[in-house]
Amino acid sequence: MAVLTKRSENYPQWYQDVISNADMAENSVSPGCMVIKPWGYGIWERIQREMDDRFRATGHENCYFPMFIPISFFQKEADHVEGFAKEMAVVTHSRLAQNEDGKLEPASKLEEPLIVRPTSEAIISDCFAKWVKSYRDLPVLVNQWANVVRWEMRPRLFLRTREFLWQEGHTVHASYKEAEEEAKKMLEVYREVAEDVLAMPVILGKKPEYDKFPGAVDTYCLEPMMQDGRALQAGTSHFLGQNFAKAADIKFQNDKGELEYAYTTSWGVSTRLIGGLIMSHADDEGMQVPPRVAPYQIVVIPLIKKEEDREVVSAYASSLVKELALKTAFGEKIRVKLDIRNKAPQDKSWEWIRKGAPLVLEIGRRDADGKNVMVKVRHLINTDGFKQIIPQEEFLAKAGALLEQAQKSLFDRAKERLEKYTRTDIRTPEEFQAYFANGNVFLQEGSDKNVAFVRGKWSGDENSDELLKQMKLTIRCIPFDQSGTEGVCLLTGKKATMDVIYARSY
Amino acid sequence: MAVLTKRSENYPQWYQDVISNADMAENSVSPGCMVIKPWGYGIWERIQREMDDRFRATGHENCYFPMFIPISFFQKEADHVEGFAKEMAVVTHSRLAQNEDGKLEPASKLEEPLIVRPTSEAIISDCFAKWVKSYRDLPVLVNQWANVVRWEMRPRLFLRTREFLWQEGHTVHASYKEAEEEAKKMLEVYREVAEDVLAMPVILGKKPEYDKFPGAVDTYCLEPMMQDGRALQAGTSHFLGQNFAKAADIKFQNDKGELEYAYTTSWGVSTRLIGGLIMSHADDEGMQVPPRVAPYQIVVIPLIKKEEDREVVSAYASSLVKELALKTAFGEKIRVKLDIRNKAPQDKSWEWIRKGAPLVLEIGRRDADGKNVMVKVRHLINTDGFKQIIPQEEFLAKAGALLEQAQKSLFDRAKERLEKYTRTDIRTPEEFQAYFANGNVFLQEGSDKNVAFVRGKWSGDENSDELLKQMKLTIRCIPFDQSGTEGVCLLTGKKATMDVIYARSY
Repeated sequence: MAVLTKRSENYPQWYQDVISNADMAENSVSPGCMVIKPWGYGIWERIQREMDDRFRATGHENCYFPMFIPISFFQKEADHVEGFAKEMAVVTHSRLAQNEDGKLEPASKLEEPLIVRPTSEAIISDCFAKWVKSYRDLPVLVNQWANVVRWEMRPRLFLRTREFLWQEGHTVHASYKEAEEEAKKMLEVYREVAEDVLAMPVILGKKPEYDKFPGAVDTYCLEPMMQDGRALQAGTSHFLGQNFAKAADIKFQNDKGELEYAYTTSWGVSTRLIGGLIMSHADDEGMQVPPRVAPYQIVVIPLIKKEEDREVVSAYASSLVKELALKTAFGEKIRVKLDIRNKAPQDKSWEWIRKGAPLVLEIGRRDADGKNVMVKVRHLINTDGFKQIIPQEEFLAKAGALLEQAQKSLFDRAKERLEKYTRTDIRTPEEFQAYFANGNVFLQEGSDKNVAFVRGKWSGDENSDELLKQMKLTIRCIPFDQSGTEGVCLLTGKKATMDVIYARSY
Repeated sequence: MAVLTKRSENYPQWYQDVISNADMAENSVSPGCMVIKPWGYGIWERIQREMDDRFRATGHENCYFPMFIPISFFQKEADHVEGFAKEMAVVTHSRLAQNEDGKLEPASKLEEPLIVRPTSEAIISDCFAKWVKSYRDLPVLVNQWANVVRWEMRPRLFLRTREFLWQEGHTVHASYKEAEEEAKKMLEVYREVAEDVLAMPVILGKKPEYDKFPGAVDTYCLEPMMQDGRALQAGTSHFLGQNFAKAADIKFQNDKGELEYAYTTSWGVSTRLIGGLIMSHADDEGMQVPPRVAPYQIVVIPLIKKEEDREVVSAYASSLVKELALKTAFGEKIRVKLDIRNKAPQDKSWEWIRKGAPLVLEIGRRDADGKNVMVKVRHLINTDGFKQIIPQEEFLAKAGALLEQAQKSLFDRAKERLEKYTRTDIRTPEEFQAYFANGNVFLQEGSDKNVAFVRGKWSGDENSDELLKQMKLTIRCIPFDQSGTEGVCLLTGKKATMDVIYARSY
């Protein structure tokens, strides 16, 4: 069995180890791309369901738009081009042919090259221009689940791969205000899923000017803190104003009969969220999946030591699984799995611990005879509560509550980390530079090497981007909850009132 | 409001008109690609759900594999290359740069070009080779929902687009027999969804040698009859034997400790099924969606003629919707939509008829006062049963049954067509040629121009493919239910015992 590197020894290696031990994903022969394996993909399907239900509840409908964008369409919005042109996959041929050595090579050159969508504003805006004629056609509220490609040079599983899976919502509105509200509403949907479902507390705010989505008026974001103190941009929602409407000619007749450019938004989250989940909840024993997104919340492993016990143990385990499947947690039926694979029970048990299944039941002859359940509670590992023997009736009655406690416990830990390691007492550029002199390592109680978030002042100075780059630092966001106090810009020493979150990031 | 071309006047135009009137999809500025709009995508989501539940029930798990395949990996299986190399999108660059005229053009040429998956055997086989070591690792049963690209020269919405959505199942087994059974089992899953869910009766069989999937030992297929007598290949399941295992080196240690090549299968259905749905059920009034895949099974439209009626009618319509949403059809909650868009009720009503919503309720003041429901039953259009006024209580009690009847009725009609227009009485090449002398048109009772399926003999002659091409004809499949009788090959006049289905196809 593979063994995990400890977070405190080599944090990046630990991250890779968690993924491979949990069998969530792997690198592919397709350069920079990943294979998402059943446990990883199952988590993604749970995230999709939770997001999709909320998109529908807020009036959005799913569509599907082409993956290929003709270059000429991509070129319409100038900032957008500037922001994305560096990292595109370009399709130039439509056939393969064998050369003299019998090797295949590209043939049938396309008249106009196509880019593989890095995001779909360019092609969707063109549809919107056709669909929208009058204020009566508005709002248009659509979403798509799709793959997108950005030519990352340093790929990392889930965090940064050339191809990744995401959803992108795109909407059109009759007024500035309505579109701006839509972008904020969807950020709130993301916050709800991040905090209530993924147990991942976030800071909400907007990006500084220089870090907005190319073509946006405003980019709103949610930023959780990872266990090494770095931030992960977990999702963004863009208020695009009339920028894309002007580029693609999305006009409508308003209720006074005048032609007007429409206002659009776009918003997306991706498989990157799974990277965030890992670095929020996994520990030195492996992955921990919050029960609300665990493909299986409870795994039952029969322990058959002697052949003569097979029938009794199998029957007891099966009946447990059946009864558990009728119970509920979070208002839904519990997802339970009976693991009868032909492998040693101890190996299976450790496998599910490393995968982070919330509750793992090991059921042997003694449990069957005594009508008990031996349960391993993943989030209580390395404490007395990890292994519990509970009478069957009692366990069935409280299985849902145990899962809900596990969910809350994961959130509380992450919330505590976010609060504890967000420094709000740094007031001068000198203190600031001293704080960020260290690199990021696994955050540890009492260590003097902890580097995480600083909530402090920023003057908005024009060359901030340069200053930040020198410190390998970023402004994560301008939080919505501003203090309004006066102070000193931590970058430049100038007077400043704006609060921002400074941190290194993924 | 757009008006549909009649099937008997111009069948291909009718097909386009059904799609645009139902607002299911449209052509895109991305050449040969389609935009799938909410009503079309909603149907796809229903199909996905029905398929996916059955894949899980038969032990398969979802994964995701990269969309880009390095040419060298694609080249491993020789027949596979031969079959697909003609129709590929090839990525050759990873960046765009501006040329002297300020236009964007491809930059940063890749060392090895990548093809966009036309199907994923090549890349998935490479994973299987890594995952499979011992018979204990088998079977591997995975599926992915993905987009694929085949460079079609004559694209048609849903039937043949350059990019389309599909699922592809891929499995690895320890024995020939088990893999062959898997391929047949999944064909049966497809049959069940096609017939029981899509109300689309199919003929099951295997493809003749020359028409197998490139690299397969056997290709099984399901073939429904469209309303112009053409066949549509609605899905295929491939028994791949050891072909891909040998190409990609998928070996396992069997229970005797010997190294052996594994046996693989693959199987897929795509958004093409929606084309099949349209040509199975749509009529001169537009689309008809079988209730089991209708995004909304019942649409409720409030008819407010006078402002003073608004409150009463709205309250009555809302309470109807609420109560309907608690009722079940096909063992699931009924999907009901209240349409309160700011449009004329008659326009809305026709819109839903053209979209093929199974039941459309128009609720006015008189209905509210009399506690009645005015229901339009889509599949009874142009008969006395189309418009019915039913007491509210009665309607609520039988709404599920009405939907189930509609589902059955659509299936029965399609089944009747399949049986009626499958000729089994053609015994000689002369009769055969006379029958196929006509082109395919909308099948009509009593017309002498009907051309559809012929179930007749085939000798298996090597140059059949050529003879068929001359007649613009295909052998759809060798049906599983063989008669075993002797006769004359309808292509060559030679003695033959094998029954096949001859037809033109999409």
